[in-house]
Amino acid sequence: MMMMMMATMRKKSPGFLFVYSRIFHSHQPLNLHHNNSLLRSGTSFCTPISRYFGSIRECRKAFQASAINHFKVPSGFRFRCITSLSSVVQRNPSFSRLNSDDIEFFRSILGEKNVVQDEDRLLDANTDWLRKYRGSSKLLLQPRSTEEVSQILKYCNSRDLPVVPQGGNTGLVGGSVPVFDEVIINLRLMNDIVSFDKVSGILVCEAGGILENLSSFLDNQGFIMPLDLGAKGSCQIGGNVSTNAGGLRLVRYGSLHGSVLGLEVVLADGRVLDMLGTLRKDNTGYDLKHLFIGSEGTLGIITKISILTPPKLPAINVAFLGCKDYSSCQKLLVDAKRKLGEILSAFEFLDNMSMDLVLNHLEGIRNPLPPTMHNFYVLLETTGTDESYDKEKLEAFLLRSMEGGLVSDGVLAQDINQISSFWQIREGIPEALMKAGAVYKYDLSLPVEKMYDLVEEMRTRLGNSAKVIGYGHLGDGNLHLNISTPQYDDAVFAQIEPFVYEWTSNHRGSISAEHGLGLMKANKITYSKSPEIVQIMGSIKKLLDPRGILNPYKVLPHSLHS
Amino acid sequence: MMMMMMATMRKKSPGFLFVYSRIFHSHQPLNLHHNNSLLRSGTSFCTPISRYFGSIRECRKAFQASAINHFKVPSGFRFRCITSLSSVVQRNPSFSRLNSDDIEFFRSILGEKNVVQDEDRLLDANTDWLRKYRGSSKLLLQPRSTEEVSQILKYCNSRDLPVVPQGGNTGLVGGSVPVFDEVIINLRLMNDIVSFDKVSGILVCEAGGILENLSSFLDNQGFIMPLDLGAKGSCQIGGNVSTNAGGLRLVRYGSLHGSVLGLEVVLADGRVLDMLGTLRKDNTGYDLKHLFIGSEGTLGIITKISILTPPKLPAINVAFLGCKDYSSCQKLLVDAKRKLGEILSAFEFLDNMSMDLVLNHLEGIRNPLPPTMHNFYVLLETTGTDESYDKEKLEAFLLRSMEGGLVSDGVLAQDINQISSFWQIREGIPEALMKAGAVYKYDLSLPVEKMYDLVEEMRTRLGNSAKVIGYGHLGDGNLHLNISTPQYDDAVFAQIEPFVYEWTSNHRGSISAEHGLGLMKANKITYSKSPEIVQIMGSIKKLLDPRGILNPYKVLPHSLHS
Repeated sequence: MMMMMMATMRKKSPGFLFVYSRIFHSHQPLNLHHNNSLLRSGTSFCTPISRYFGSIRECRKAFQASAINHFKVPSGFRFRCITSLSSVVQRNPSFSRLNSDDIEFFRSILGEKNVVQDEDRLLDANTDWLRKYRGSSKLLLQPRSTEEVSQILKYCNSRDLPVVPQGGNTGLVGGSVPVFDEVIINLRLMNDIVSFDKVSGILVCEAGGILENLSSFLDNQGFIMPLDLGAKGSCQIGGNVSTNAGGLRLVRYGSLHGSVLGLEVVLADGRVLDMLGTLRKDNTGYDLKHLFIGSEGTLGIITKISILTPPKLPAINVAFLGCKDYSSCQKLLVDAKRKLGEILSAFEFLDNMSMDLVLNHLEGIRNPLPPTMHNFYVLLETTGTDESYDKEKLEAFLLRSMEGGLVSDGVLAQDINQISSFWQIREGIPEALMKAGAVYKYDLSLPVEKMYDLVEEMRTRLGNSAKVIGYGHLGDGNLHLNISTPQYDDAVFAQIEPFVYEWTSNHRGSISAEHGLGLMKANKITYSKSPEIVQIMGSIKKLLDPRGILNPYKVLPHSLHS
Repeated sequence: MMMMMMATMRKKSPGFLFVYSRIFHSHQPLNLHHNNSLLRSGTSFCTPISRYFGSIRECRKAFQASAINHFKVPSGFRFRCITSLSSVVQRNPSFSRLNSDDIEFFRSILGEKNVVQDEDRLLDANTDWLRKYRGSSKLLLQPRSTEEVSQILKYCNSRDLPVVPQGGNTGLVGGSVPVFDEVIINLRLMNDIVSFDKVSGILVCEAGGILENLSSFLDNQGFIMPLDLGAKGSCQIGGNVSTNAGGLRLVRYGSLHGSVLGLEVVLADGRVLDMLGTLRKDNTGYDLKHLFIGSEGTLGIITKISILTPPKLPAINVAFLGCKDYSSCQKLLVDAKRKLGEILSAFEFLDNMSMDLVLNHLEGIRNPLPPTMHNFYVLLETTGTDESYDKEKLEAFLLRSMEGGLVSDGVLAQDINQISSFWQIREGIPEALMKAGAVYKYDLSLPVEKMYDLVEEMRTRLGNSAKVIGYGHLGDGNLHLNISTPQYDDAVFAQIEPFVYEWTSNHRGSISAEHGLGLMKANKITYSKSPEIVQIMGSIKKLLDPRGILNPYKVLPHSLHS
């Protein structure tokens, strides 16, 4: 058993909680998530797929070291922690309390060992990956089949026992842990591959399959999963689909609404919805599966998934480029889409403050474009079938871009070590930010042409009180806005929120690009969705889960839950 | 005004209607649709986009000539026509009848000229493109704004007046015309482009925009629409999205569930749902827009669309290949996905009976692979950024495939005329079928490995009484099963249906790959969807349109409408 540091919560002022440290015991290895709050170091190139994250073991070590450092310093807590739960959400009084008859019933279905009441295991399952949220569930169930999930839910529904579907528990918005005493249902034992069609590339699998295991299976077949996340070693495909996970391949392969072809879902009352089609085209009525993609387990529990997987392509090229302004980055993106079109697989940008942070705070990182600092940097990746053709195409494109003035300077990786080192810069920003002090993190979708305006407005707004850093997936319109201060400061925070949400809302952006709403942002939904839309969401929730037992207090505003 | 032939319906035997001919006057030019029931001749290569269909004008002429020939011969009716409406659907008695106050009200909102009562125009709007269905609506409304659509629906809902949203009226399942006296709402005047972002390629437009006009607009910007249909000269983007149109680019760019980023929709009660996001990533609650994609106007009227458009790529290459068996076609598809991956843009197959038909019934078509006839043929297309790189890549792939025995013989188009001639073979099959006699047409999605089994089983079943032809979009798992007989024959039909639907259902296929259910297949939905799913569809219909005024009698089984 590993000794680690864990965050607990202590009320500091009305309405807010802060993170302090204490020792806790964990059976679970720490998971990795692609989110920026993660550390990424010691990256080494292994295969095209794992390149982004290097050795999982090395990354875990790095994270663990960092977590200890991070939580050891009481004055140095760096996460902005949740609004006090008790101030915004009360336990739903219509829910029952678990009793011994319930336990007896679950044992009769699942057998003794899959009805978990062990305190250590429950502590892990009650606590989210960021150690920001902790529930007080007394029961973790591990069904082995859709039929068992159905029986569990049918019973819970009849008893008004609330449940939390939990996958790898790698979410960042408190969606996968109980708020109070909800029964936790984890599908980790349901991890079979049901079928794989090598002609169409369609995989059918159970929802508890670990993303990395599925990727490994497909790798042997010459295919890849259409999504890839830092958390792939822990996260389950059911959780990915439930949260509509984005990740690194979205710019190339699109969202799960396009890739997922079918689902099997168990509703709150135990009904099993068989929507497990394996067809690319099916226009026979309303496509209900989309309701369950991204609804974070509040409408049903996904038990099986049918997903279209792309073929694995062998040739990867990466360029690291300097640009004089944000406008050039945008124009370069337009050109890249046109000239590199079919082989473009990543288009990431960072500003000079991001680069500065990485160079100053991370060891072993060198500026690939010395001696000048450029205002902006772009990491451009291509993935295709032929190394030499693709490289030649990319070189021609870069030459034209430099001649046209869009690129001031640039370098094309000559080997996998250089590819890895370029990605380390982009992927090292979160770690550098954490080393630099406290950080306020926002994951926003915005129209590409407006994206950087927010960074600049925030700089004007905060003046010398904070460093404002902008980087992200330019190809997806996904900005990672990070505000770095020596330590947490209420005055700075008051300057940031709700301004950042209001600005995002005014520019028709999304306050959650890929992380979902969970518990953290359930009450903030109207920054991105109109009251009419939220009301219809509430009606659909009532239709499919009239007693509200599925993942209560999440996604929808708490006013709709009561 | 053009004199043309039109189908009317006459009851022949209980339960079925057949198509005979009579003269009618039409203001409307005939539309083209990519469906196989269309004629395609005189095709000439113009641009990569229009190549598939050649000159629109030429095709229209060909179709018109054919329609006249087709309907002139009373004994030669070739469409299997609809089951008698009166035997399966009754006018909903809770609906009101239109009165003069209603007309007055609509005039007060829309002005005189957009409240159409002209008989000729109504005859066109009441009749579907295939001349299989005809309603008896007395009113066609042409709103100019979302606000007008909202006012119309609010009023109709309060008065229990049913409505049919109509786009280009190019559908093939009777979804876009009234069944009885529903008010027709056509959005053709709402055809503005709201915005286009050249950085992200995101187009926002009104729903009445003609697909071809949007394509032309984008062409000037260096982009293309992610869908392309034969009907593009007439069909409206709102109709495309409402029916989740498939088309020729699906294998490359995926379905509209992936491309459509946002919608504005007016509900039955006039509420306007603003889901018009322009973001690739937005995980803030249930993604309700997907309910409206493919629900054929039964849940709301789409008024604006935000859609991700791909960059226009200049290099197209086409190969025409002979294969010894269906298994080789499948293996070739797997290899093509892996080796051509990012540039593969079409993978069509046809059997030797299809080829035989084309060679025997169409003029000017030559076998590209003489003198042998192969059992199967594959048309393979690549689209990319660089002509020479792509061609070299394709040539290398084809060489390997021939060495490996997957391809018996093949030819790579050397110029646009050859590209055009190869596509003419594939696109000429429907025309050849119509020239050959009566034809029973099925548009099915099936698992690729099972697809051709149905063709073979059908051959065994029908023996010498009919020719069974199989071809289609192998890359999408979309089979066009066509059964050709000298003339329509009840005994043959009884051998085909319901067998074809049952077989499709048993193999978890879809009875409507891309055409929707409309009126034609509303009662057949359970061949592809379980009763639980259909019941939830019914609940969602009730939730969003409690009075059932939106496109009644369509999509859902008629038992759910009453």
